[in-house]
Amino acid sequence: MPSPLTLAIIGTGLVGSKLISQIASLSSWNSKFKVVYIASSSRSIFAPQGIDLSSWKERLLAGPVVVVDNTSSDDVASLYPHFLSRNFSVVTPNKKAYSSSLELYNQILAASAKTGAKIFNESTVGAGLPIISTLKDLVQTGDKVTKIEGVLSGTLSYLFNEYSPATSLSPPKSFSSVVRIAKEQGYTEPHPADDLSGFDVARKLTILSRLIPELTNALPKGYESVSITSLIPDALKSTVWSISGDEFIKKLRDFDGEFEELRTKAAEKGEVLRYVGVIDVREKTIKAALEPYPATHPFATSLSGSDNIIAFHTERYGPRPLIVQGAGAGADVTAMGVLADLFKI
Amino acid sequence: MPSPLTLAIIGTGLVGSKLISQIASLSSWNSKFKVVYIASSSRSIFAPQGIDLSSWKERLLAGPVVVVDNTSSDDVASLYPHFLSRNFSVVTPNKKAYSSSLELYNQILAASAKTGAKIFNESTVGAGLPIISTLKDLVQTGDKVTKIEGVLSGTLSYLFNEYSPATSLSPPKSFSSVVRIAKEQGYTEPHPADDLSGFDVARKLTILSRLIPELTNALPKGYESVSITSLIPDALKSTVWSISGDEFIKKLRDFDGEFEELRTKAAEKGEVLRYVGVIDVREKTIKAALEPYPATHPFATSLSGSDNIIAFHTERYGPRPLIVQGAGAGADVTAMGVLADLFKI
Repeated sequence: MPSPLTLAIIGTGLVGSKLISQIASLSSWNSKFKVVYIASSSRSIFAPQGIDLSSWKERLLAGPVVVVDNTSSDDVASLYPHFLSRNFSVVTPNKKAYSSSLELYNQILAASAKTGAKIFNESTVGAGLPIISTLKDLVQTGDKVTKIEGVLSGTLSYLFNEYSPATSLSPPKSFSSVVRIAKEQGYTEPHPADDLSGFDVARKLTILSRLIPELTNALPKGYESVSITSLIPDALKSTVWSISGDEFIKKLRDFDGEFEELRTKAAEKGEVLRYVGVIDVREKTIKAALEPYPATHPFATSLSGSDNIIAFHTERYGPRPLIVQGAGAGADVTAMGVLADLFKI
Repeated sequence: MPSPLTLAIIGTGLVGSKLISQIASLSSWNSKFKVVYIASSSRSIFAPQGIDLSSWKERLLAGPVVVVDNTSSDDVASLYPHFLSRNFSVVTPNKKAYSSSLELYNQILAASAKTGAKIFNESTVGAGLPIISTLKDLVQTGDKVTKIEGVLSGTLSYLFNEYSPATSLSPPKSFSSVVRIAKEQGYTEPHPADDLSGFDVARKLTILSRLIPELTNALPKGYESVSITSLIPDALKSTVWSISGDEFIKKLRDFDGEFEELRTKAAEKGEVLRYVGVIDVREKTIKAALEPYPATHPFATSLSGSDNIIAFHTERYGPRPLIVQGAGAGADVTAMGVLADLFKI
């Protein structure tokens, strides 16, 4: 039986709390993981397992240590090179470190290579879905990825599954009303503009792109280098962050006609609208955009609710891509992705 | 840089040859893997890297050793406990060891637990698709799998995608003619009865079931304990193995009417036929069967060619399952699954 993995858990929001409860409910957790430190934004405590300070210190020095960052903080992310160079491994659903500047990313890789400390981030894309591990396996085994295409935001999946369904018996809804309902049902961020900006999708595309050898250096500024179609109307861009989410949705009504025009134009060709991320390796283009898809396409027919779907086109898989689909957001499945990473260390 | 992993590769058929070429084409393979032994059914050679015997012996004793079994042999499979108890890890696409008697399976687990030698078999189900790793992650992180349902045979996927398409402009084909064309195009085993028996699907269901805690002991005799609907007509069962594949297809013509009846009955309800594997954890039923699915179901609309698709229904994923889809057969993607396993060791 190997010695237990020592965990320092930073962040006790939705995902962090769920992760701790998942670890606590594992029947064999006691022998696998030892939580020694839990920190929220305002204070830190030692785990209720109550290890006394002296033996905890010995343990911390003796065994492998993993920092679990459940925050979405840029500040914590900027500390990863520091953690890794001290031989602390890092497991995180925090997208920031992987989707910001190439400089930070390279510092992380260098620190990990130097000490051998591991860093895993499966749940930064698609939560618990096997997306990053699958891409790593494809690349590591020498397959050539030619294109990745997917609906990578649970919120935007829900919005367009509702707004532009493949088949529908009910009368069409206005875009602003779909956003309003999504917010009421908890599908959006508190401020829906955070979802509509496309930044979240751009961050996920950055994380994936950097795992593809041909594109490692393609996004020097991270997600800011991605070609992004924002769903925030141009006329609202200057004021959107100074008004509340609800006020924003009210103002969005004035632009329902613009979205309606796109939907009608697509429908006339038998198409639906989906907000997708596309990485075209040969063309070296990386974009987050609202695109029309035939109503018979899997992105139109297979999706429901806030499902994610991702298609890996590769040389080995030929004309029919490898597809992964399922819930890509939610505290429970995100925490599961973190826990699966912990088992890998 | 860790010391390279020493490989003994048994089996040099389609998958074995492909695996060796994939290892050879990895740019960094030289530092990751060292092939010391390659055995076909009739002879064995040392790798062309030309390590002399004495240093090879030292290396074999010093570093970790992995046996790669690319055969489909019961005899080689029965040696796994022996390999593992000598601290040799095993990586294999050979389904035999995992889908035969519970006794052999338990011997394998016990030997692995005793020495810590690893055994990986990702490519036994769905070739390179992340199916076994996903199921392991779900179970290991404490999720409860309630049902697994999928099209797990590339051959049977092709046959019924062609025979019972969701939408079709061409006139319906007879079942025997679809089998004949599939054989001509290399989609079937040399004797198509090997595919139509359902045994291959039952073996895959056995492998998956044993990874689910509630079902570990549900199949004492392995695949023979699975409820299997054979597609070999009863009247041919006693003679099928004494005639050739082509003769079998000719005789199958006499039974086209029976298949036609099933297809028509399904079509009248807006359904198509798919040969699926279903593991119902709550009911504790495990079956390989020809089932009707609505023409709008993903098994009807999303599949083409010889794609596999598998849906994991779990408590965490709730009403919408986690889905993995893509090519589930073929030497290239099978070898990729083996190679991905090697990277995990």
